[in-house]
Amino acid sequence: PPLPQRSAGIIGAPFSKGQHRGGVETGPDRIRAAGLLQRLQQQGCAVKDYGNLEFEEVTEDEPVRGSSRVRAVGSANHRLSEAVQAVKKDGHTAVMLGGDHSLAIGSIHGHSAAVGPLSVLWVDAHADVNTPLTSYTGNLHGQPMSYLLHELRSKVPALPNFSWMKPCVSARDLVYIGLRDVDPAEHYILKLLGVKVFSMSQVDHLGVARVMEETCDYLCSSVKKPIHLSFDIDAIDPSITPATGTPVVGGLTYREGLYITEHLSQTGLLSAVDLVEVNPLRGRTEDEVRSTVGTAVDLLLACFGRVREGNHPSDYHLPDP
Amino acid sequence: PPLPQRSAGIIGAPFSKGQHRGGVETGPDRIRAAGLLQRLQQQGCAVKDYGNLEFEEVTEDEPVRGSSRVRAVGSANHRLSEAVQAVKKDGHTAVMLGGDHSLAIGSIHGHSAAVGPLSVLWVDAHADVNTPLTSYTGNLHGQPMSYLLHELRSKVPALPNFSWMKPCVSARDLVYIGLRDVDPAEHYILKLLGVKVFSMSQVDHLGVARVMEETCDYLCSSVKKPIHLSFDIDAIDPSITPATGTPVVGGLTYREGLYITEHLSQTGLLSAVDLVEVNPLRGRTEDEVRSTVGTAVDLLLACFGRVREGNHPSDYHLPDP
Amino acid sequence: PPLPQRSAGIIGAPFSKGQHRGGVETGPDRIRAAGLLQRLQQQGCAVKDYGNLEFEEVTEDEPVRGSSRVRAVGSANHRLSEAVQAVKKDGHTAVMLGGDHSLAIGSIHGHSAAVGPLSVLWVDAHADVNTPLTSYTGNLHGQPMSYLLHELRSKVPALPNFSWMKPCVSARDLVYIGLRDVDPAEHYILKLLGVKVFSMSQVDHLGVARVMEETCDYLCSSVKKPIHLSFDIDAIDPSITPATGTPVVGGLTYREGLYITEHLSQTGLLSAVDLVEVNPLRGRTEDEVRSTVGTAVDLLLACFGRVREGNHPSDYHLPDP
Ligand SMILES: [Mn+2]
Ligand SMILES: [Mn+2]
Ligand SMILES: [Mn+2]
Ligand SMILES: [Mn+2]
Ligand SMILES: [Mn+2]
Ligand SMILES: [Mn+2]
Repeated sequence: PPLPQRSAGIIGAPFSKGQHRGGVETGPDRIRAAGLLQRLQQQGCAVKDYGNLEFEEVTEDEPVRGSSRVRAVGSANHRLSEAVQAVKKDGHTAVMLGGDHSLAIGSIHGHSAAVGPLSVLWVDAHADVNTPLTSYTGNLHGQPMSYLLHELRSKVPALPNFSWMKPCVSARDLVYIGLRDVDPAEHYILKLLGVKVFSMSQVDHLGVARVMEETCDYLCSSVKKPIHLSFDIDAIDPSITPATGTPVVGGLTYREGLYITEHLSQTGLLSAVDLVEVNPLRGRTEDEVRSTVGTAVDLLLACFGRVREGNHPSDYHLPDP
Repeated sequence: PPLPQRSAGIIGAPFSKGQHRGGVETGPDRIRAAGLLQRLQQQGCAVKDYGNLEFEEVTEDEPVRGSSRVRAVGSANHRLSEAVQAVKKDGHTAVMLGGDHSLAIGSIHGHSAAVGPLSVLWVDAHADVNTPLTSYTGNLHGQPMSYLLHELRSKVPALPNFSWMKPCVSARDLVYIGLRDVDPAEHYILKLLGVKVFSMSQVDHLGVARVMEETCDYLCSSVKKPIHLSFDIDAIDPSITPATGTPVVGGLTYREGLYITEHLSQTGLLSAVDLVEVNPLRGRTEDEVRSTVGTAVDLLLACFGRVREGNHPSDYHLPDP
Repeated sequence: PPLPQRSAGIIGAPFSKGQHRGGVETGPDRIRAAGLLQRLQQQGCAVKDYGNLEFEEVTEDEPVRGSSRVRAVGSANHRLSEAVQAVKKDGHTAVMLGGDHSLAIGSIHGHSAAVGPLSVLWVDAHADVNTPLTSYTGNLHGQPMSYLLHELRSKVPALPNFSWMKPCVSARDLVYIGLRDVDPAEHYILKLLGVKVFSMSQVDHLGVARVMEETCDYLCSSVKKPIHLSFDIDAIDPSITPATGTPVVGGLTYREGLYITEHLSQTGLLSAVDLVEVNPLRGRTEDEVRSTVGTAVDLLLACFGRVREGNHPSDYHLPDP
């Protein structure tokens, strides 16, 4: 098929305080350096780079109810939410390059503030739906969905620097793919709310093609809401994307990751994408970093219409000798 | 689903004389050191460790009809058979940590002696059904199923230190998964007896989900016999589990291995498990050993109810702020 | 099933001038050194080795319309075409060991000259269907199918040392599997001619078993033409076959490669095979070379009837004690 007209508005979010490992804040620049913008343009996509966000320094940030650096996370996400709103107002598909997955709070909030109710596809080894009261680690990158879900409002305490946001996603509009390391509290929440989950067992059972068919049937069964894709690179198997903070064996193959993003792109409903948890410092070799970053780029290219069978311009003319 | 009540009775069988490579006798301790017992307990499984078996020293053990260390293998399996019977009498699901695959003789014999007729699921790159007269290598780890099958009784000669055992498995009750290196004699036997085989070609053709569906339909079509799972780690691809004596390319993925054990666990019929041929000395790096041993542990956790979508206790209560 | 009677006529084509990387001319000897001939014989296949072709030295070979070493490629393929015709006249299934993929010109031409209209199954990361006028690189290993297709006759200029050949394949008789790096001009051509393509997206969507079912339905729907398999080792994922000139991530698994060749062999129509683009100098370690060459050998063994479930001679007799 000829290339659809698309445009990407890219926000770098060099933020790592939703977890404890340094390096994930270098993700955005590393992904750009791998040629993301040029390659998007080469495939016929308009690109605007909004640069990297600068986050306020938060000096006093004592743990709150066991969770770490709550104020910094709240403040950064406030900033990110506004940036995403601006990108959406400019008419682009928003691309948020993380940084850690706590950034989904601002990204999804801003997206919803700009366009209204969303469908969310969360591709991750983890459910990231702990509340501050159930988290074992106190890292906010394991909690973003609990802040965002209407149904969990009464289970999440008021937190400093979070007064700017309110839940904006319904459990009915959320689908997970790739889960394989889910805490008991998270499992309880997902069952209680009846969230649609394709764990790795289901991916093995159904195959990725049927998973995507069921995902799109489920999300598009009534009103076709804009789709927010939140892609944690640790959804992919660590043999391919090892440079990440919390790798878990038994992940999606490179091909399954591409299939998910290709398929989603073809719905025409993809309105914002997060690509998070690429941590170049976690690669043990330069090859490991390259493979992780290269996969992130390929996933984003597929989000903007790249397909493996190839493309040609609609006015292509085959030269005669 | 809430965790079922389960209990594991663990027997270490540090035995390597069914083949020629040193190191496989260190498998049981290495698997325990990777945290098997603690992780089983964490997932709500009762655990009793019966320790490592001590095997009689067999001093005179000349080859018998071309097969090596027959007397040592016979004696060790006699000992193992009695140990498995004791574990079953205590009411546990038996877990035999090998050691080489000749140990399936005693493990399956003891299991059957305790509970009666069994179904056997043999997951392996190899069929291990040579008779002493067809074996190219003379290694008994390539022969155990020929000793166990009623239908091969007349094809297996009387061997020293094997008078304690008689065949106890019917060809109708045996299923293979993962075969990809089958000797001509073995292929002849499997065809002659009409054994149900899912070679890697069939796994590719049907997918692992349908293989497990057909396996369970086949094994449970009439009487639901207790299931004995005999899992040779070389069934899994050597890119994941290289630390084994006879690796063969083109094996099951980690995810397929987990799918098999998850699915089997959910039948409620799994009554004994062998996990064999982990040979830490065959890993070229510590990473290779870790990956092999870690996979073995994950397969065993799945046998005892671990699922990738997660679990929660049936009385779980979500905390309020 | 008992082994069918088969015979392989092997031609080495140590030629690398269809591209710019040295080393691919050592492919044939390296594949032989890995035991191809002996292993074919062990599985009951008759083998005749026709040795390595010796190619004319072409001294003056300036680029022609942007393409490199056109005269050398034309001359080498002329030689190869005659060699393949001789092998077919001797009654063998022809095996051409490359060398680079420009050799498909002579191999397919010679095959067709000997047996008439062919079906062609092209397994490759690339479509190799650029014309000299659309090629970005000017390498002839990216162009062979444009020379061979009747439908592109008017789009390919007359080239020096190519007057011996004419197009001999119809677009209707061509199937691609494995594509994932297709130029816009190539995509235009494939769509224009309605060529049957299973890109990696389609392989992910349908699974390899259904891809092969549809391939064989498509190729055998009317007249059963002899099949020419042209297998570029870069169709397989570079994690398995890295020693090749233009690796592309996201390829076929080892198992998918074997499934394709096993399935094709069982049609009984396979009449010639190219195995090309194995470049031992592109492996970074000896392990990488070994894995690449070993995979090439295994693919060829499967072409000649090896199946993973095993085989036995039809007159096999199980020994009694
Ligand atoms: Mn994650
Ligand atoms: Mn995450
Ligand atoms: Mn084995
Ligand atoms: Mn075995
Ligand atoms: Mn290629
Ligand atoms: Mn090619």
